Amino acid sequence: METVTVLLENSMDETPKTNGVVGTPPDTPVLMKGGNYIREGKDSHKSTCIIFSLKEEVGALAKALQIFQKNQVNLLHIESRSSKRSPGEYEFIIECDTNAGHVAMAMDALRDSCHYMKIISRNYKDNLDVTPWFPRKIRDLDKFANQILSYGSELDSDHPGFTDPVYRARRTMLADIAYNYKHGEPIPRIDYSPLEVETWGKVFRQLTELYPTHACKEHNHILPLLIENCGYREDNIPQLQDVSDFLKDCTGFTLRPVAGLLSSRDFLAGLAFRVFHSTQYIRHHSAPYYTPEPDVCHELLGHVPLFADPGFAQFSQEIGLASLGAPDDDIKKIATCYWFTVEYGLCRQNGQIKAFGAGLLSSYGELEYCLTDKPELRSFDPEKTGVQEYPITEYQPIYYVAESFDDAKEKLMKYAETIPRPFAVRYNPYTSSIEILDSKPQMDNLLTDIKQDINRLQEAMSRIAFEPKDI
Amino acid sequence: METVTVLLENSMDETPKTNGVVGTPPDTPVLMKGGNYIREGKDSHKSTCIIFSLKEEVGALAKALQIFQKNQVNLLHIESRSSKRSPGEYEFIIECDTNAGHVAMAMDALRDSCHYMKIISRNYKDNLDVTPWFPRKIRDLDKFANQILSYGSELDSDHPGFTDPVYRARRTMLADIAYNYKHGEPIPRIDYSPLEVETWGKVFRQLTELYPTHACKEHNHILPLLIENCGYREDNIPQLQDVSDFLKDCTGFTLRPVAGLLSSRDFLAGLAFRVFHSTQYIRHHSAPYYTPEPDVCHELLGHVPLFADPGFAQFSQEIGLASLGAPDDDIKKIATCYWFTVEYGLCRQNGQIKAFGAGLLSSYGELEYCLTDKPELRSFDPEKTGVQEYPITEYQPIYYVAESFDDAKEKLMKYAETIPRPFAVRYNPYTSSIEILDSKPQMDNLLTDIKQDINRLQEAMSRIAFEPKDI
Amino acid sequence: METVTVLLENSMDETPKTNGVVGTPPDTPVLMKGGNYIREGKDSHKSTCIIFSLKEEVGALAKALQIFQKNQVNLLHIESRSSKRSPGEYEFIIECDTNAGHVAMAMDALRDSCHYMKIISRNYKDNLDVTPWFPRKIRDLDKFANQILSYGSELDSDHPGFTDPVYRARRTMLADIAYNYKHGEPIPRIDYSPLEVETWGKVFRQLTELYPTHACKEHNHILPLLIENCGYREDNIPQLQDVSDFLKDCTGFTLRPVAGLLSSRDFLAGLAFRVFHSTQYIRHHSAPYYTPEPDVCHELLGHVPLFADPGFAQFSQEIGLASLGAPDDDIKKIATCYWFTVEYGLCRQNGQIKAFGAGLLSSYGELEYCLTDKPELRSFDPEKTGVQEYPITEYQPIYYVAESFDDAKEKLMKYAETIPRPFAVRYNPYTSSIEILDSKPQMDNLLTDIKQDINRLQEAMSRIAFEPKDI
Amino acid sequence: METVTVLLENSMDETPKTNGVVGTPPDTPVLMKGGNYIREGKDSHKSTCIIFSLKEEVGALAKALQIFQKNQVNLLHIESRSSKRSPGEYEFIIECDTNAGHVAMAMDALRDSCHYMKIISRNYKDNLDVTPWFPRKIRDLDKFANQILSYGSELDSDHPGFTDPVYRARRTMLADIAYNYKHGEPIPRIDYSPLEVETWGKVFRQLTELYPTHACKEHNHILPLLIENCGYREDNIPQLQDVSDFLKDCTGFTLRPVAGLLSSRDFLAGLAFRVFHSTQYIRHHSAPYYTPEPDVCHELLGHVPLFADPGFAQFSQEIGLASLGAPDDDIKKIATCYWFTVEYGLCRQNGQIKAFGAGLLSSYGELEYCLTDKPELRSFDPEKTGVQEYPITEYQPIYYVAESFDDAKEKLMKYAETIPRPFAVRYNPYTSSIEILDSKPQMDNLLTDIKQDINRLQEAMSRIAFEPKDI
Repeated sequence: METVTVLLENSMDETPKTNGVVGTPPDTPVLMKGGNYIREGKDSHKSTCIIFSLKEEVGALAKALQIFQKNQVNLLHIESRSSKRSPGEYEFIIECDTNAGHVAMAMDALRDSCHYMKIISRNYKDNLDVTPWFPRKIRDLDKFANQILSYGSELDSDHPGFTDPVYRARRTMLADIAYNYKHGEPIPRIDYSPLEVETWGKVFRQLTELYPTHACKEHNHILPLLIENCGYREDNIPQLQDVSDFLKDCTGFTLRPVAGLLSSRDFLAGLAFRVFHSTQYIRHHSAPYYTPEPDVCHELLGHVPLFADPGFAQFSQEIGLASLGAPDDDIKKIATCYWFTVEYGLCRQNGQIKAFGAGLLSSYGELEYCLTDKPELRSFDPEKTGVQEYPITEYQPIYYVAESFDDAKEKLMKYAETIPRPFAVRYNPYTSSIEILDSKPQMDNLLTDIKQDINRLQEAMSRIAFEPKDI
Repeated sequence: METVTVLLENSMDETPKTNGVVGTPPDTPVLMKGGNYIREGKDSHKSTCIIFSLKEEVGALAKALQIFQKNQVNLLHIESRSSKRSPGEYEFIIECDTNAGHVAMAMDALRDSCHYMKIISRNYKDNLDVTPWFPRKIRDLDKFANQILSYGSELDSDHPGFTDPVYRARRTMLADIAYNYKHGEPIPRIDYSPLEVETWGKVFRQLTELYPTHACKEHNHILPLLIENCGYREDNIPQLQDVSDFLKDCTGFTLRPVAGLLSSRDFLAGLAFRVFHSTQYIRHHSAPYYTPEPDVCHELLGHVPLFADPGFAQFSQEIGLASLGAPDDDIKKIATCYWFTVEYGLCRQNGQIKAFGAGLLSSYGELEYCLTDKPELRSFDPEKTGVQEYPITEYQPIYYVAESFDDAKEKLMKYAETIPRPFAVRYNPYTSSIEILDSKPQMDNLLTDIKQDINRLQEAMSRIAFEPKDI
Repeated sequence: METVTVLLENSMDETPKTNGVVGTPPDTPVLMKGGNYIREGKDSHKSTCIIFSLKEEVGALAKALQIFQKNQVNLLHIESRSSKRSPGEYEFIIECDTNAGHVAMAMDALRDSCHYMKIISRNYKDNLDVTPWFPRKIRDLDKFANQILSYGSELDSDHPGFTDPVYRARRTMLADIAYNYKHGEPIPRIDYSPLEVETWGKVFRQLTELYPTHACKEHNHILPLLIENCGYREDNIPQLQDVSDFLKDCTGFTLRPVAGLLSSRDFLAGLAFRVFHSTQYIRHHSAPYYTPEPDVCHELLGHVPLFADPGFAQFSQEIGLASLGAPDDDIKKIATCYWFTVEYGLCRQNGQIKAFGAGLLSSYGELEYCLTDKPELRSFDPEKTGVQEYPITEYQPIYYVAESFDDAKEKLMKYAETIPRPFAVRYNPYTSSIEILDSKPQMDNLLTDIKQDINRLQEAMSRIAFEPKDI
Repeated sequence: METVTVLLENSMDETPKTNGVVGTPPDTPVLMKGGNYIREGKDSHKSTCIIFSLKEEVGALAKALQIFQKNQVNLLHIESRSSKRSPGEYEFIIECDTNAGHVAMAMDALRDSCHYMKIISRNYKDNLDVTPWFPRKIRDLDKFANQILSYGSELDSDHPGFTDPVYRARRTMLADIAYNYKHGEPIPRIDYSPLEVETWGKVFRQLTELYPTHACKEHNHILPLLIENCGYREDNIPQLQDVSDFLKDCTGFTLRPVAGLLSSRDFLAGLAFRVFHSTQYIRHHSAPYYTPEPDVCHELLGHVPLFADPGFAQFSQEIGLASLGAPDDDIKKIATCYWFTVEYGLCRQNGQIKAFGAGLLSSYGELEYCLTDKPELRSFDPEKTGVQEYPITEYQPIYYVAESFDDAKEKLMKYAETIPRPFAVRYNPYTSSIEILDSKPQMDNLLTDIKQDINRLQEAMSRIAFEPKDI
């Protein structure tokens, strides 16, 4: 879930509500609604993961484990793999409980017997040697559930459904589904009520009128496919699983239900795996053109069509990859770039400005407004865009314009190169895992992959009977 | 399932049984046991798939569908996607029943209104315009079940378990599991009987004695990880799902249970998706060191450790990719290359010859024999290796030696370039699907991917604080 | 010669002289002084070059030559080579005199018997099939001499040396040397007079004071090498040949003496070959800090140090490559980009703005001025920079800032992709010639080169005993 | 000069002369005639070159120079350049006389103050830190003259021209021309006598009869171009400079006259620069179909046509690059590979065996013989080919067959990767110099070049209006 669009439709009433949010502390949700939503999950488990290779083989792991035992550190998970850094060696991944025992002493002892050692932990502040925790396998996304900053069934007192017990029960039910969801399971299908479908229908009808003139060509290109393949229509709310399957087939993106508000760091990390955290509930029927939070209308009409576009999918994944293990300051910048592209981005197409941000594509009011001459348009430039302040309770005064998704991706990757991090990362789609690139053998493997792609290209070129059109 | 090792262990009795197989007709199992096993699934569905783009948009698909209706062709599946060949256009994938209606006439009519049209069908013989059918999505592998050449519960009269009703019931149960298996489902866990475990234990104990001296280093490197992570040990038969999860994590390979004998074409196609068709039953307890067919001992001890090696995984996938849509003659050559590498391959490591073929690594007798000076060794060279005859009921008189998996892969890719096929193929691991490369925009996308990898490499190089060892 | 800096130093007197130049017609010198300098060389030879492959081999060329004979077209040069477009075929390059005979008819007749035919000619206006002439081999630069728009010995009446017969004789002598210069010859060494050396000394002394604070780091890095290797010092004017040899050794750039004003098209084309057209005379001793035209001070102190930098050399060559065969409008844009980079470019280095343009680095006054807050700074963006008007008789009101030479090069290449041209070009440094890329075999060769480079990189990586700095 | 073909034509008399050569000591001419020709140039200058970067800038070079002065080492040449290893630093290249002074002590002292230091010297034996000397710039090839093992005017007593004073004077004159030749100069044109032309004519007539059936397609493709462009005909001996210009235009290869026998190391090094050392004299008129040494017939008819082929040119250059700084053992292997390819290579073309080696293409007798079934044919495999013994006084009993020049190149590059050398090398055709690749910034530059090529390819692909031949 990204809590983003939130009060945008709010601005459809003439009097936007302000929550008095001023700035956002790092690693709390930049993309938040604010107010009482924000709170750090206090008792939540602090995930710490140690990756290490040992100098000797025989009995080495046993000794390493003794170190933890001696220091009374509780190990939650142990895994051994082949090392990609030192061919022929093993690598161990240990997850430990940092709430008890002499963790720091154990680490120091371990370091002495290691070839290679890397600590990634949620407990990274004031620890120079520690990289902020990030998921390394797609299954690690299951751990986000314990890190939710605000459970999705809690409603503000000014929420349109605050006093509706049926709506609140529905929200709780859906949040519970998401909370218990595990990677690989099918997303439960929801039997939406006639009232819910009616609300969806109103939004669907109104927005589809505006798309031909206001939405970017990718959105207009994909929507008919969603209608044909996923049951997008006025009288039906598409099921997340069907949409996720379609996206998987187009670009490998998948949807994952989310129980509440994620931190920016966690939310962005999902994108590195081409996973989008999506809500499953719909706004309250009493205010169909307004929602203080994202809902299925926002996800399915705003986000989904774009994730089916290969160029946009790559761009989104690069945002995610840039965020992994980045310092808090950069997380904030990346989240702001996300805001000004995936949520509120404009782009230039055939000399015209069009909208591709989901916050725009799911709000009739702001979609109309953004292409008028009222807002200020600037060129997307991650260095500058990433530090731009923005309001969350009214229409955006400034939009950033991307030349193309490809261009935006390249700019983002250039900015990402400046993020301080002692490694690069690469997503391995075969294993659905992140590779931490910090050794020569890994770079050599990457070169081998590149050569293989070039061979493949050369083969393709030779096979295809192209002919120049004319002399 | 690869039916390969079959009678190899047979040769452990001094009197190998011959089945009188002389050569193999194309597209019947080259990797077969032979005899009464071979028969074409007569009533099996002939899968035909048409991929096409239409010249105009409005109503074009409707017209196209009318063509089929007029010609009384039954459509089994319709799918619309964004075209990767003509940006901004759509592509339609239609699966039709070729057993009824005027299929050829429908195709001719359709061709006139198409930008692009490709037919892939099991009914490709004597059809110049038709490419032999191959799975394009990982889910398409579910269609193999209907194409099985011999159901796994049928036993030859000389099979050690032929007269054992308990064993036959077990075989039927396991074949049924595989027959009904669908992609994405967990592989059912089997509660192996003490007798079955005892059989496994005997094989496991005997082979692990020989591995340190006879197996390639990759096998010896991975086996301890399988012991630690997947329950490989004398008193336990590992569960396919656990092993598959481990492989997925290492290289993206997965196991898929198979109900019987697949054609070479189908079996090889699975490898293109990094899917290995595996048996789940074990040999009869009365002859623990002999099996006329592959069984879990062969799969888990012979194949699995190698599939966990990234280089071998790539090599295996290239075999699969080479086979997609290839003519029958080439399928036979590729299957023979498979035989002399994945099943019976030797390799050179640090100046010594070692075994990496699963047929060797699962047969104590032949593993010993292959490193003696009795057999003839030749260099792996797909052009020559692919046309070499070989016996299936005795130890191999000739083995082929690979310099390395990487070298074998490059040689195979070079050979693959000579296979007549009007397109190249590329596996997209994000969507788990095969891309048919036959247009300029696709090649442009591949170039863009290559550039992105180079950027990533350059970033990695810049981030890592390498220093030359000395001046 | 680029006639660029011209009146810049003029602005050192408080009253800049205007020549009333308003805009510049395409293919006349954008980088001009203006006034009576501009005139099209009327009787100059119109170079036309036809490249073609013939359909049959035996006697085909003879027939082709007959076509020209019949049409009374005079052939100046005939050359046969191996075709890079159709392996195994030949390609003919014919240069003909378009002043006589029925050229158009001959071309039409020839086209009928050709596989491939391309016409490049100075006579390209109103000829859709004709590409504007450009040099394809480095020797073709010799043909520029006949295209000079203004001979370097002609002086304006307000030129400081206008009434000095000794100076005028010197100018004539140096212009004659350049006029007769042929590729491959050593550039004649000039025995500069004490008065000339004194003038150089004044400029040298004054500028070297400002460089440490105002020049980009590349300039400051190279200057000491020029002092050590090429005789740069107050009491000596370096010889072009020595400087050219040094540049050749650093980046492959060479200097070539120029007899007068070249058109933008010709001047830019030289850069594609890493050839810089350089003046050899020095400004008049009566006004050492002012020159209405480029002179050795401008070339040697402004341009040369930058051409010794590999990144800048690549950038400059890309400017040249972009110009080859481009339409007049784009030539003007590229020339303007040249103006705002190679002549007047600023760049950002370690958070500070520095000068790298030769017009700045050879003018004490403007070098000081450009880093004050008086001028407006904009980001270099070829699309916008290329259409910016600029004054040539006063300090620039606007400067463009490059992030780095690499970044500027990439931006320029992106712009270059939009220039309408039915081929790409590639410089072959082995043959010192331009390859017109418009066939699949050529692209295949390029891919093979790329693979070879990747192999080389992989080898380099494997050989070097890098070690990470720490764990 | 390669002394190769030598006694091949000898075998045209039925009684080949043996010189009793048994094996060849490393770094003496493997490609030699043998006997009294071999001797190390005793007083020849031992070239030693030190490349180093200094830790501090101010006064650092002066201190370094003092080290040499103190140790009484005579410096022959000093050069300063920008370092490609440490951007912003300088690199010094010093050439010193190792015949006097305390060289080793000076080196030790210098090493202490260096960032980077590499010694390349002809005096490398028993010096672990010293790399065998190789030319780093094309001008360094001028230094070979002092290293000639046998002056070209010395004739054996059994040489057909031994007693002919006119012939001997001619040989001396031509050897002197070559001895005094410097890079960049035009090769003097020779006014060949009628007797010399007649000899050429006989050879030319005889060989051109056999080419259509026996020579590889590249040779047959280029020969007509040499006839048209370079004066190849019965009654004219082509001039080296004309041929060199033609080659330069085709592939960048150039010819360089050679005064006598070069060591294998030196001869091979020339190829790294695409420079071929060529004789300019012709065999004695008394034996037109026999020559104990290479002559213009061998060079112009055997070698030149192949060097005009881009693929062969690359292959030849890779041989040269592999040799630079290699240990003596590997020089011998590489020279043997050269022998079995460039001199005596066969290749497979359209299912037939053809000759591409110059030793074959310049000997009527062996050209006929090599395609009969008398000799043994083996696949070219550098590891094995490089250690094969061969006779130099009779027809080869074994020939090696290349699949293609590209394939031979790739195999050679793979072998080259195994040559022990603490750096990779790359030829920079812009600067005509060898880059010693042993630092990260250099690899980064190479990556940047690769990206630029990929951009160029992508541009080319987008510009060319290719269309698939049919749907």
